[in-house]
Amino acid sequence: VRRYTITLLPGDGIGPEVITVAKNVLQLAGSLEGFEFGFKEMPVGGAALDLTGVPLPEETLLAAKQSDAILLGAIGGYKWDTNEKHLKPETGLLQLREALKVFANLRPASVLPQLVDASTLKKEVAEGVDLMVVRELTGGIYFGKPRGFSINENGEEIGFNTEVYATYEIDRIARIAFETARKRRGKLCSVDKANVLEASMLWRKRVTTIASEYPDVELTHMYVDNAAMQLVRNPKQFDTIVTNNIFGDILSDEASMITGSIGMLPSASLGELGPGLFEPIHGSAPDIAGQDKANPLATILSAAMLLKYGLGEEKAARRIETAVLDTLNRGFRTGDIYSEGNKLVGCQEIGQEVVKSI
Amino acid sequence: VRRYTITLLPGDGIGPEVITVAKNVLQLAGSLEGFEFGFKEMPVGGAALDLTGVPLPEETLLAAKQSDAILLGAIGGYKWDTNEKHLKPETGLLQLREALKVFANLRPASVLPQLVDASTLKKEVAEGVDLMVVRELTGGIYFGKPRGFSINENGEEIGFNTEVYATYEIDRIARIAFETARKRRGKLCSVDKANVLEASMLWRKRVTTIASEYPDVELTHMYVDNAAMQLVRNPKQFDTIVTNNIFGDILSDEASMITGSIGMLPSASLGELGPGLFEPIHGSAPDIAGQDKANPLATILSAAMLLKYGLGEEKAARRIETAVLDTLNRGFRTGDIYSEGNKLVGCQEIGQEVVKSI
Ligand SMILES: CC(C)[C@H](C(=O)O)[C@@H](O)C(=O)O
Ligand SMILES: CC(C)[C@H](C(=O)O)[C@@H](O)C(=O)O
Repeated sequence: VRRYTITLLPGDGIGPEVITVAKNVLQLAGSLEGFEFGFKEMPVGGAALDLTGVPLPEETLLAAKQSDAILLGAIGGYKWDTNEKHLKPETGLLQLREALKVFANLRPASVLPQLVDASTLKKEVAEGVDLMVVRELTGGIYFGKPRGFSINENGEEIGFNTEVYATYEIDRIARIAFETARKRRGKLCSVDKANVLEASMLWRKRVTTIASEYPDVELTHMYVDNAAMQLVRNPKQFDTIVTNNIFGDILSDEASMITGSIGMLPSASLGELGPGLFEPIHGSAPDIAGQDKANPLATILSAAMLLKYGLGEEKAARRIETAVLDTLNRGFRTGDIYSEGNKLVGCQEIGQEVVKSI
Repeated sequence: VRRYTITLLPGDGIGPEVITVAKNVLQLAGSLEGFEFGFKEMPVGGAALDLTGVPLPEETLLAAKQSDAILLGAIGGYKWDTNEKHLKPETGLLQLREALKVFANLRPASVLPQLVDASTLKKEVAEGVDLMVVRELTGGIYFGKPRGFSINENGEEIGFNTEVYATYEIDRIARIAFETARKRRGKLCSVDKANVLEASMLWRKRVTTIASEYPDVELTHMYVDNAAMQLVRNPKQFDTIVTNNIFGDILSDEASMITGSIGMLPSASLGELGPGLFEPIHGSAPDIAGQDKANPLATILSAAMLLKYGLGEEKAARRIETAVLDTLNRGFRTGDIYSEGNKLVGCQEIGQEVVKSI
């Protein structure tokens, strides 16, 4: 019998609640498809800071590296907001991404027919949106050097960062994006600021070069400011979007809000070798933590991405996705996606309903 | 009699059409308030490239510097899209901003009751949106050095840019933003990525320091990814937003699309001394250029900002703003803001209606 080792990183805020629920769902989906899991729970983020003094303890990283895939809840909270940079919960997440070399972050954003009313966009604009943001995750201004603080020639304090991309970094994320687009509707939009930034000019050049390997995929380019507008004007024009780390951070969050159900959206972060990192795109929501109000569906769908992209267990993944849709069809809703005529339930209960549906 | 020298920079695409209309409106508003204009028209952008081989000719910059204010149409077009960086139309605009030291870019985005249906957001979300983005315009990654292309230690080509802010740059834009918020609803939201970037950490620190000079303004901080979401979720929560050059580029375009009427939105770019630069935020729209289809209202409202912020002629500015609203109330619409039951007119005709309203 196939057996996979999964590192669970509940993290902070609502993280532990949603991870507990998603773990049960994973376990069931696996056993129905004839495989088993060994779970190892480790601290990260604020939880790790409180326990060990650092946001990514060595033991956590080691466990993550030795596992087949990693499922993360959420990271951060007011308590640690004023910490110095190396003691911020977020720094633990960035260190984890870097150490695992998960350079490709896949962030689907689609509007489910059941939840179209949750979008702030007009129904005819939101309906049918189904896009995927492929965000470069281990390069660019997030990690570029030099960075830091200094004093300039006028004696003024400065803060600085470096946006930098090398050809191989662009090429590999471009290939992932073209592969992704090929499996979807065959359209890739590369987003940059090539009218101003040299890093973007190289980005555009390399993406265009890689395009010749994928003649079946239609490539377009768009400036990031225009992309931020077009996502609001007509999000349906997009199939797959590929962009750098910081633009991907901004645009994927914007896209997720366009669906109106950020509590529903999963993500996958993949490298060339080694385990992938799977997490909901929502934050740790400290204001509702511990109250059984969180929506665990984003984490459950992240578990489905884990099965599909992390373990190649497509059937089990589809079981989970179908069960989530079925649960919605049966009218169960957490507070964030509630609308009249449906049944308002908590984190655990909606999780149990997904389990039933499986 | 007061006399002002205005440099007109029609630029490319629909630029010349909208500038012609706005010039007539300016002239009339001035004469009714008892002052005169001397206009000087100069080439910039693609038009300048074609004429002189550079996107910002010395004569254009000199005329601009010697005038009391500058009104710009639009810049750019497919024709020059593949030009090298120093021969791009956009480079002319960036050089102009830098040479004029107009570090403060004010971009209002409000949803007019007459045009609420033009937004892709639901009526209850769009209605009443009235925000102002204060974007730092002459610093950050747009101008930071070092920048360029190079070969890294592995022999790979890299493209790189520097995001950098000095305290004085942050302090002066923060003060403009606090002053702006004070004259509006007294709320300022500073947007950064201080959980990741050192440049943003300094930004947050300085904005917080400057806040003590403005105890009557309520300051909040928001990460840029969250801001991109919140603009879609509930744009009404914002009064004044202050942010760096690149985040301001992205967020102000997103905010403008939320109003649904990007053909309506003006902008002002101001420095400490010297003339301000006023321009619509829309682009050069080469596909409709020369067809009398463009919406000149954004440029007309930019002329109003020119009167108010550039010349201190508030009365004349208010005349123009009122005339634009009156023209909309009388049902005149260009194609981009047309809805059933209104009168579809061209660029010149709607301009004439504004003139009548004044
Ligand atoms: C928490 C933060 C460092 C992180 C990022 O900016 O990448 C988050 O916003 C995300 O998108 O996963
Ligand atoms: C044309 C381009 C260089 C410019 C910018 O990025 O600043 C434009 O997008 C703007 O916002 O005025």
